[in-house]
Amino acid sequence: MSQIEQWRELAAQLRVDSIRATTQAGSGHPTSSLSAADLMAVLLAGHLRYDFQNPTHPNNDHLVFSKGHASPLLYAMFKAAGAVSDEELLKLRTLGSPLEGHPAPVLPWVEVATGSLGQGLAIGLGMALAGKYLDKLPYRVWVLSGDSETAEGSVWEAVEHAAFYKLGNLTCILDVNRLGQRGPTMLQWDTAAYAARARSFGWDTIEIDGHDVDAIHQAYRRAEAATEVPTMIIARTRKGKGAAVVENKDDWHGKALPKDDAAKAVADLGGVRHVTVAVGKPDDRRPSPVPVGNLSLPSYKMGEGVATRRAYGDALKALGAARPDVVALDGEVNNSTYAEDFAKAYPQRYFEMYIAEQQMVAAAVGLQARGYVPFASTFAAFLTRAYDFIRMAAVSRANLRLCGSHAGVSIGQDGPSQMGLEDLAMMRAVAGSTVLYPCDANQTAQLVAAMADREGIVYLRTTREKTPVIYPSEQRFAIGSSAVVRASDRDQATIVAAGITVHEAINAQQVLAGEGIAVRVVDAYSVKPVDHRTLRQAASETGALVVVEDHWAEGGLGEAVLAALAGSDPFPRFIHLAVRTMPGSGTPRELLDAAGVGARAIADAVRTLIAQHSADHVR
Amino acid sequence: MSQIEQWRELAAQLRVDSIRATTQAGSGHPTSSLSAADLMAVLLAGHLRYDFQNPTHPNNDHLVFSKGHASPLLYAMFKAAGAVSDEELLKLRTLGSPLEGHPAPVLPWVEVATGSLGQGLAIGLGMALAGKYLDKLPYRVWVLSGDSETAEGSVWEAVEHAAFYKLGNLTCILDVNRLGQRGPTMLQWDTAAYAARARSFGWDTIEIDGHDVDAIHQAYRRAEAATEVPTMIIARTRKGKGAAVVENKDDWHGKALPKDDAAKAVADLGGVRHVTVAVGKPDDRRPSPVPVGNLSLPSYKMGEGVATRRAYGDALKALGAARPDVVALDGEVNNSTYAEDFAKAYPQRYFEMYIAEQQMVAAAVGLQARGYVPFASTFAAFLTRAYDFIRMAAVSRANLRLCGSHAGVSIGQDGPSQMGLEDLAMMRAVAGSTVLYPCDANQTAQLVAAMADREGIVYLRTTREKTPVIYPSEQRFAIGSSAVVRASDRDQATIVAAGITVHEAINAQQVLAGEGIAVRVVDAYSVKPVDHRTLRQAASETGALVVVEDHWAEGGLGEAVLAALAGSDPFPRFIHLAVRTMPGSGTPRELLDAAGVGARAIADAVRTLIAQHSADHVR
Repeated sequence: MSQIEQWRELAAQLRVDSIRATTQAGSGHPTSSLSAADLMAVLLAGHLRYDFQNPTHPNNDHLVFSKGHASPLLYAMFKAAGAVSDEELLKLRTLGSPLEGHPAPVLPWVEVATGSLGQGLAIGLGMALAGKYLDKLPYRVWVLSGDSETAEGSVWEAVEHAAFYKLGNLTCILDVNRLGQRGPTMLQWDTAAYAARARSFGWDTIEIDGHDVDAIHQAYRRAEAATEVPTMIIARTRKGKGAAVVENKDDWHGKALPKDDAAKAVADLGGVRHVTVAVGKPDDRRPSPVPVGNLSLPSYKMGEGVATRRAYGDALKALGAARPDVVALDGEVNNSTYAEDFAKAYPQRYFEMYIAEQQMVAAAVGLQARGYVPFASTFAAFLTRAYDFIRMAAVSRANLRLCGSHAGVSIGQDGPSQMGLEDLAMMRAVAGSTVLYPCDANQTAQLVAAMADREGIVYLRTTREKTPVIYPSEQRFAIGSSAVVRASDRDQATIVAAGITVHEAINAQQVLAGEGIAVRVVDAYSVKPVDHRTLRQAASETGALVVVEDHWAEGGLGEAVLAALAGSDPFPRFIHLAVRTMPGSGTPRELLDAAGVGARAIADAVRTLIAQHSADHVR
Repeated sequence: MSQIEQWRELAAQLRVDSIRATTQAGSGHPTSSLSAADLMAVLLAGHLRYDFQNPTHPNNDHLVFSKGHASPLLYAMFKAAGAVSDEELLKLRTLGSPLEGHPAPVLPWVEVATGSLGQGLAIGLGMALAGKYLDKLPYRVWVLSGDSETAEGSVWEAVEHAAFYKLGNLTCILDVNRLGQRGPTMLQWDTAAYAARARSFGWDTIEIDGHDVDAIHQAYRRAEAATEVPTMIIARTRKGKGAAVVENKDDWHGKALPKDDAAKAVADLGGVRHVTVAVGKPDDRRPSPVPVGNLSLPSYKMGEGVATRRAYGDALKALGAARPDVVALDGEVNNSTYAEDFAKAYPQRYFEMYIAEQQMVAAAVGLQARGYVPFASTFAAFLTRAYDFIRMAAVSRANLRLCGSHAGVSIGQDGPSQMGLEDLAMMRAVAGSTVLYPCDANQTAQLVAAMADREGIVYLRTTREKTPVIYPSEQRFAIGSSAVVRASDRDQATIVAAGITVHEAINAQQVLAGEGIAVRVVDAYSVKPVDHRTLRQAASETGALVVVEDHWAEGGLGEAVLAALAGSDPFPRFIHLAVRTMPGSGTPRELLDAAGVGARAIADAVRTLIAQHSADHVR
């Protein structure tokens, strides 16, 4: 059989298996798989260099199915590569099967989850950055994208950044099958328009018939020859190609073929077969080993005024010195987040992502897939831009470190558009996440170091304003713990705070001490996991809790504390101080007070709880 | 004075005032204001048609400062238009002043908030849709954009959609001042590259010297003549233009000039002056009045199986019949969300936003600025893509109705990428938001109707699966209330549920009834505001609460209930059932059970609480 016939035969098998698996499952996306079967057959049999026995081989190519709903095609490729059995393939979408509805790294050959469209190219870009600038290995990154998903702006963020970073090792295979979920795409089969757009951003483009295996092969060869310019292969295809009953027809998105139609289509395609492909092996070059140093964290003098964002920058730079696997990214605000210190010290490990937060998080996901330890920073408010990417990073089982600066009303004059006031809620509601919010520079340094070794999505919230250093540099701060700033056995109430409000709490405590009211102050710097034991002990011993946070009332520290206390008997008297109305501009001091999260409001809340207690006793 | 001299004189005043206001404030963005002063002087004096006495005039042009940090320039324009006094201008960024660090609709001439970059063009697109397709009035939408913000993909979503919708009434004025916050932009002064990109998406482009007032004037004239094609004016400018000490210099982003430098710059620019401009008045055409009908909501038979997403589609169509101000948008999934029913019935009031959720929300913000009542829908999971836009919509004081379908693990086979599991947390943490989660079709219809008249950001969560109708169509459901599905005076526990888990709760309640355990079931369909009174009463009367939700444990119904109960004395025994580990694929039934939010887990939790109680009594 000629090479071309072999490719056609493999494509037929991929189609047959995509149909069989989805019809067996009773759901899934056969038509979206069929349009790309020729593209993937030629890639798998003729171009991909990948050791299925060793999925973490550093020289493996990377294949990202950005159109994750075409997972049946991907799984059919795994079967053709001998990695998945036919029996496993037919368990698609059933409970416990790693062949989920959309690809996820519960399979060893899937590096990142897809299924939220418009993410794959941006993530692949991160892998390509690793290949070109860090690993310096000749692997290639292949991204299969759908035409519908080019409506997502994140695709154009990736297109722009890939050209800017001269990622010749990145190839986007655009499956232009004309039909979205509910009807035609904006551009339908206007492949020239896609090409003009990609070229205007600096890409090489190749328009082909996506069912012509030789044309596909030639396009891949051209892509493989690229060194400085990414390649977009724009393939005109037919959705459902090969199954006459659904081919190029409306209303067949995301629907399995009924059994009879499936049997007919399988027969038309030549029936079931079990061809196995010898996939090309990667080179066996290794990344150069890099020396590991000792971590020497910055330290700060007690009483000194240092912004926690400043300490983030210092600590990140220190981590960079000790750990060559640490890399940093920022969204064009590195002189505000202080990621710039790392950028200046280790420019080869810093990636400027400009004002493209989705791309920033996606690149970090791609980098960690290659074993790097990315720290990505921007204003806390602007991480909201990337929430879908953060959510999906959790499905990718990615290890990400995110830093959001300029949290809360305490940023002052810039006003509410720049204030992160929902970031704790957003980041807490990420599967398996860790949420940290330090109040002083020494604590920040400790937590930044802890982030590097923490699995999952780890978020650090930093403050714009300088705050006094209140902890000695020797003090240790474990994730999941808290710091009791002040306690006695005659405390009448506890103030639970984090970050900027710790300092407000200390001020309130001092004012109350002057009135003869002893108050405990708990610094709950680990917002998730929160320190149940210390909180419950404080609740039980003092009987009254004020939680104060520079964040909306929902989903932040207050509710984290309530969740920790739920079931306590007796439940403490409780007041939650948080931001409840839209702030404006003003000084940090004015805005903290206006929001009712400053020292004065805290002291008032404590007095209220104590008065309640007295009233209860009288009752 | 010639027209050109007048424009130059006005530009000088705008520069002087931008410098004075920021130096007085001690913060702000003078250099980003100075680069665009000529562009805005010619617009204000020669092209904008706007009645400052009547900011809601339907024929007013719309000016969106997408580069919101250039607010000093905008406020200086307001002074030049006679709308703001010099004294007010100099209160920039102080507590209580509506001249906030970034523009917000606390000023009558600001329609939408900006300050999160990359949003203005997408919002302006919504206004342009209103002008062309709904109002059918000849007003124009002018968007001042920065070059840095074109790195945001949302800009390219807007560029594509504007061309697709043939918005000749939309003009983007791109201020290419070369410098971002921390250094040069990716393209620096390569205006030809910007032009090629915009043209490849179908825009007309004009490259000009952004300090040549006559060239600016000619460009605006060409934009004004456009009918079917949007215009991008790509203006090469110098950041800080006119203030020699900062002009085209690094490290001057977002910094006020020191007093001496400011005085020198003001003197160089000809000193302080108070020219007032006669801004062109709009036409006085009115939108045609449209007949209002009676609302006839759909109704469903008790016991029938109807997905709440299906009821959303039915109710939205009914609203559309009754209210001509209701419009709908969707992100290429309207056959899943069932917005397609509205789209088919009222195609002229439906805007397909394809897979571009940021653009969808932004267009809705623009439409509501023109008085329309937009409903925008997609999968709940994909609303995470637009979180920054939703957050900013709250700063815009926008009235938005969002619907997220396919919530929770109960979607089944498609897997975690498609499951909205953080949407309640995300939407609760939006200032002034309303969060609704109906469990049956009649309830959904009532709530959709209530959404139309609700202020602020209103979110409705719908379910993919069919669920039985449990409420008669006559029953009413107020926002902020709840429905007690079953109660008696001998209830030993309360199950609080919403949406899909209400049905699980009812099943658990029936099983427990068979064991002689009487349980109350509260349907907390209004997650925010949540019904404090009913929850506290249930806690007090039954002494034990199980909250169960198809959502991550953080920030959703469970914590909303805890916040409502905080301070209760005694606090009820409490168990919170929520999704705590990453789901996979499976049937809805399997996944609800695997997550521990199904009827069996609920019944177990109730038994546990009752056993606790007995143990307490023995103790």
